[in-house]
Amino acid sequence: MSGNLWTETEARRAGLQRSMEREGLDGVLITQNVGLYYFTGSMQTGYLFVPVEGEAVFYVKRSLARARAESSARIEELGPFRGFGARLAEDYPDVFGKKSPAIGADLDVLPAQTFLRLKEAVPNADWKDASALLRRLRSVKSPYETERIRRAAQAAASALEDGLSRLREGMTELELMAAIENSLRLQGHIGIMRMRGYNQEIMTGMVAAGEAAAEPTYFDGPAGGRGLTAAAPQSSSLRPIRRDEPILLDIGCCIDGYVIDQTRTAVIGRLPDELMRAYETAEAIMRETESALRPGAIPERLYARSLEMAKEAGLSEHFMGFGADQVRFLGHGIGLEIDEWPVLARGFADPLEEGTVLAIEPKFTFPGFGVVGIENTYRIAGDGFETLTLSPEKLYVVVG
Amino acid sequence: MSGNLWTETEARRAGLQRSMEREGLDGVLITQNVGLYYFTGSMQTGYLFVPVEGEAVFYVKRSLARARAESSARIEELGPFRGFGARLAEDYPDVFGKKSPAIGADLDVLPAQTFLRLKEAVPNADWKDASALLRRLRSVKSPYETERIRRAAQAAASALEDGLSRLREGMTELELMAAIENSLRLQGHIGIMRMRGYNQEIMTGMVAAGEAAAEPTYFDGPAGGRGLTAAAPQSSSLRPIRRDEPILLDIGCCIDGYVIDQTRTAVIGRLPDELMRAYETAEAIMRETESALRPGAIPERLYARSLEMAKEAGLSEHFMGFGADQVRFLGHGIGLEIDEWPVLARGFADPLEEGTVLAIEPKFTFPGFGVVGIENTYRIAGDGFETLTLSPEKLYVVVG
Repeated sequence: MSGNLWTETEARRAGLQRSMEREGLDGVLITQNVGLYYFTGSMQTGYLFVPVEGEAVFYVKRSLARARAESSARIEELGPFRGFGARLAEDYPDVFGKKSPAIGADLDVLPAQTFLRLKEAVPNADWKDASALLRRLRSVKSPYETERIRRAAQAAASALEDGLSRLREGMTELELMAAIENSLRLQGHIGIMRMRGYNQEIMTGMVAAGEAAAEPTYFDGPAGGRGLTAAAPQSSSLRPIRRDEPILLDIGCCIDGYVIDQTRTAVIGRLPDELMRAYETAEAIMRETESALRPGAIPERLYARSLEMAKEAGLSEHFMGFGADQVRFLGHGIGLEIDEWPVLARGFADPLEEGTVLAIEPKFTFPGFGVVGIENTYRIAGDGFETLTLSPEKLYVVVG
Repeated sequence: MSGNLWTETEARRAGLQRSMEREGLDGVLITQNVGLYYFTGSMQTGYLFVPVEGEAVFYVKRSLARARAESSARIEELGPFRGFGARLAEDYPDVFGKKSPAIGADLDVLPAQTFLRLKEAVPNADWKDASALLRRLRSVKSPYETERIRRAAQAAASALEDGLSRLREGMTELELMAAIENSLRLQGHIGIMRMRGYNQEIMTGMVAAGEAAAEPTYFDGPAGGRGLTAAAPQSSSLRPIRRDEPILLDIGCCIDGYVIDQTRTAVIGRLPDELMRAYETAEAIMRETESALRPGAIPERLYARSLEMAKEAGLSEHFMGFGADQVRFLGHGIGLEIDEWPVLARGFADPLEEGTVLAIEPKFTFPGFGVVGIENTYRIAGDGFETLTLSPEKLYVVVG
């Protein structure tokens, strides 16, 4: 492991301990691969126990050798799962000697079956849902993390440029998507992007054109896309890209664990007037959001202001999806996962902090015609923000 | 939806009802995207309730429009989650009018947080873990499903051929992997492969060479690979491919929801003698397994026999991973997910049935040198088996 990540994961565990103390937790058990990586530097299979005071132990099932090489936390072999409670009691007598210690876990991702087994294996623990605490901790990124998001932004910008240079009338959404993915992969994209939400999946973003981009889907974003099959009902399809229709290029990639998310709109020829006006409204919403983007800004207010602007433009029904299929946010945190906190949505009232990284994505959906919009990733900085996305923000008019 | 899938998903729900009756369940709630698709033909977000008798309802949150277009089960809008219990009680008075109806759910994948909310929303249900029941149902594939696995096998065979034609000494694992992925994607690979196991992830398989292929990892398979980073510690790396070392090409893809999994070993030049002998042992294990592969065969016995053969060859410590990092199976079911049932492992004693599809993968790991082996996907047929994998089974000796 690089010295940076070693020091950093130690500091993250210390930060977790401070949060636990504030929230009255005696310990936290991290079970999810992304959480394990975040707090130890290793993604091997096992459980990380962090007591409110003292040293954490990463109990590893497999691969012990790899965990020992990667983790900044002390490694122990997990051993038989039914003995895990006794093991914890032995290693942490101060915690599990209590009558009913409050133990937090990442219950938003831990499957119920494993949770029920944990309850049996560690019978005196009073289990608490630590999901919100963990998501809040992860929302502020260190320079180490931001540097990786920057690298992902570079790969995405270069892949977009490469993709646009190949864009021709008549090629399918999938052909353009595959070219972009190939460029991303050769730049070190790990081949998957991670989402935390149950049942949420994401390919490497999507290229979607015309009415196919506007097809509604379960995907928790403003545009889902037609997709190749009902068994993967989102992202690119086999539809050919035509002239004078919006082409949505929502591109992500994951470099060294960190994701970027960016969207640009392109057209071969000319956008219909109504869609051009909507694109300009998306730009105006982006500028207005940027004007308020700084430490202290309230996420739900940024979202409320975007709703107002969509309404003033007469585009409420088209904003962030259409009608019943609208999503109720303007942006989202991004880091090791695509769908991090905070969300620019109602209910997110904690002020933004320096170091928070957000993807902001005003988009407008016109069923039968297409989706237009923009998505940039920002870092909240001392006196405002810094744009991490590197692709020039404009409507890309292509000869094709 | 095609007429086939309509009839088929109806039949699957009827099969589920027969299983529920046998196991004394009053109803089953399906929450996972793959399960929803399997039983309705639609992967939109919501909950499918199947009563032991009568009509199922798919309560959909988003997208209703798309679910209505895709699902063979009746669609209702989900509405506010806190009202879901009352809604079920109203729609299924015979079930929820009981004092404590036994309701199964897919607890192996449902997050604990959502499970705890469901327990509150549907207070009189006696929740049961239906994971095993659901996995058993899914293990036998219909002709409709097998046809899709065949298409995936075609794409994998063609991508392997394409990849091998580009293989050159000095190119990186990632470069070869990216070329294969590009071929798969253009043939309609949906861009992701699904695994059911918690924290398990898979790229499009892996290309891994020499000692990098032999590096242990958390991945629940015999070979993990070095990977690009500790944040994605498996699959291909930036290591250049050299002469006279084994190149493991473990290739998967997902066509119309169904996955294939196949492995071939290649070499530029000549394999070291010890690895050549191990490769031949993998072939011998494959032939021996095939000789017993038919309806009625017992999965754990097939595994036990492979262990014996590895031992006879003096290769026990190298079989299915090395030493402490060995996995304890010879193969696994495959379909909508990579890691389906049955597993060819201890504890799987139910006889194989006609229609079961299995990936069987004898492999040998030599730390510092590499991994050799084979993986084929088979369908259990009337009097034996049918090989679904289309790539010729041989050691691929490449000029490079």
